[in-house]
Amino acid sequence: MMIERGLNFNAGPAALPEEVLLQAREDMLNWQGLGCGILEVGHRTPAFITLLEETTSLLKSILAIPKGFEVLWLGMPARMHFSAIPLNFLKDADKAGYVVSGMWSDMAFIEAKRMFPKGSYCVASAKESDFKDRPFEHQIENNTKYLYFTPNETVHGIMYSPPAEINVPLVADMTSCILSESIDFSRYACIFAGAQKNIANAGLSVLIVRQDFLNDGVTSILPLTLDYRTHVKHHSLYVTPPTFNIYLANLMLKWLEKAGGLSYFENLTQAKARCLYDAIDASSLFYGLVEKNARSLINVCFTTGSDVRDAAFLDFADSQGLLGLKGHRAVGGLRASLYNAVSMFGVECLVNCLQEFEKL
Amino acid sequence: MMIERGLNFNAGPAALPEEVLLQAREDMLNWQGLGCGILEVGHRTPAFITLLEETTSLLKSILAIPKGFEVLWLGMPARMHFSAIPLNFLKDADKAGYVVSGMWSDMAFIEAKRMFPKGSYCVASAKESDFKDRPFEHQIENNTKYLYFTPNETVHGIMYSPPAEINVPLVADMTSCILSESIDFSRYACIFAGAQKNIANAGLSVLIVRQDFLNDGVTSILPLTLDYRTHVKHHSLYVTPPTFNIYLANLMLKWLEKAGGLSYFENLTQAKARCLYDAIDASSLFYGLVEKNARSLINVCFTTGSDVRDAAFLDFADSQGLLGLKGHRAVGGLRASLYNAVSMFGVECLVNCLQEFEKL
Repeated sequence: MMIERGLNFNAGPAALPEEVLLQAREDMLNWQGLGCGILEVGHRTPAFITLLEETTSLLKSILAIPKGFEVLWLGMPARMHFSAIPLNFLKDADKAGYVVSGMWSDMAFIEAKRMFPKGSYCVASAKESDFKDRPFEHQIENNTKYLYFTPNETVHGIMYSPPAEINVPLVADMTSCILSESIDFSRYACIFAGAQKNIANAGLSVLIVRQDFLNDGVTSILPLTLDYRTHVKHHSLYVTPPTFNIYLANLMLKWLEKAGGLSYFENLTQAKARCLYDAIDASSLFYGLVEKNARSLINVCFTTGSDVRDAAFLDFADSQGLLGLKGHRAVGGLRASLYNAVSMFGVECLVNCLQEFEKL
Repeated sequence: MMIERGLNFNAGPAALPEEVLLQAREDMLNWQGLGCGILEVGHRTPAFITLLEETTSLLKSILAIPKGFEVLWLGMPARMHFSAIPLNFLKDADKAGYVVSGMWSDMAFIEAKRMFPKGSYCVASAKESDFKDRPFEHQIENNTKYLYFTPNETVHGIMYSPPAEINVPLVADMTSCILSESIDFSRYACIFAGAQKNIANAGLSVLIVRQDFLNDGVTSILPLTLDYRTHVKHHSLYVTPPTFNIYLANLMLKWLEKAGGLSYFENLTQAKARCLYDAIDASSLFYGLVEKNARSLINVCFTTGSDVRDAAFLDFADSQGLLGLKGHRAVGGLRASLYNAVSMFGVECLVNCLQEFEKL
């Protein structure tokens, strides 16, 4: 059966590979011959527990997660970790340093500051540049337990990583870049990511945490279901987990492996970004919103400089089946999100569309 | 196409109507002709916002939720509300009274007590009966802000409701009985439910809260994403919500309406329970685990009295395509969960199966 689909550049929930969707469709009424569909299967059945364990193994193998780290599959939004991270890791005189490089890290810092006014501070900020560049100057205070940052900022389209000389344990919100680049785990205490970009559909977050980091901290005001130790102890089954999202993550990780693994997608991510930025830079109509050195490889923010022309471009793109190109409401303009399910062919179609629109 | 499916008596994630699953399958690659599947659609697109608003209206109309109540669709497990309820509603000298009628209310009480040792107390308990009967004696203390209870306990199979003379605002975990009975909202301040029984698939919880109850309380230690006011203010879109679960809830509510609405399912629930309990009571092999007056209409807990025979029955049932009949590991024995997607035909098949097994 042929089903017509557009090219989806949504920032998230985002495009998923057709192969994965076809399999999900297949398993809707009867999964693995169990007599019930994937949405109906109990989370404590042997079949689901096998799936969960396999999904964890796949993620560990694809990302090369070293021993000493736990992987948790949690039915909570990524933004809930903005509160859970300081609640889990800070105690007594500990401090948490935040790098503010865009809207998401700013929100995480605001929440940490609200809950731990004395325990949180800003290490570096790009707010003065109105988030058009990355932060440069870093000031680390004594007793800093972790440095929090957001390697890829989806709203402003900024990439950032802490300078190599910073040796405080890192905590990162990798929602929009996980599985599109390799990770040097030796620097990290904790990584989390919402699933709705590269992992699965919305409603799941993944947490990768160093076991010895978990044993520290923890205050009595930490809700039991936000306590990461609860979920480690119960292997992500303390509460009924979002079973379908975990199933979809399993399909996605297998799809990723089959297509060539992490290094394939790391190269592809760079090639797709280069292709699109080159076209934008060559254009006399469109221009990028971010300083070149700070540009995101994943969320390409650009504009014609005019709301009216941007809107006209959105209509034009839509008529060609190119979807989800509107910029975030906090920034305006245009944005193309190039997660793993967006192919090089998709990016080339977008480039053609930009060029055709410019000629109109 | 004919797909063979069993009869699923799982306690949750539970059976879903075939009609709903077929529709979900249909919408996997292209939803509403938008060019992307339901898993890929952005949560801020007009199509999704329309769906969300319609789903809220459907729930309000089906349950006859009066003005003055908010409906929230939250990407968090029901158990997270065990912490969020006292965090949202208790302040200063307020107290929360808990009725402990089974495993879930016991866990909710333990969590409230851990977080608010001085602010939480037990109003009534059936723990001494080993949860084979409902609690009887109630002691309400001064300054009780709310009375918390679990009308249906899935693990022990107990139904309970507070005596009519108690006039403290009620807070109820309706995870396993929502949409199978009418609710007298005049007594309630807040109702919540995990979706994985009668509402949708696992990964969503629904909260129905009286607006004027929200304005009270709230401590500074309440994480922003657990603060119900945050979600009211942002109409359940403060974080990326579990879009697919909300879509499925929409399909489920339409299916429920089409089948006859709440009163139809209220009657059906009683008829199904009567049919099964009558068969158990008439049997000389099987017997119920709970006092007759306290029996759940939804989760029917029973046994042969022998682990070996119970296991043999599970095998026999499985060979007939009757699934998910094992009791909770905390109780043992057998359990049949009769949510809305389990038809009277399904219950009759189970009764036949019990009778056939007894004759072996």
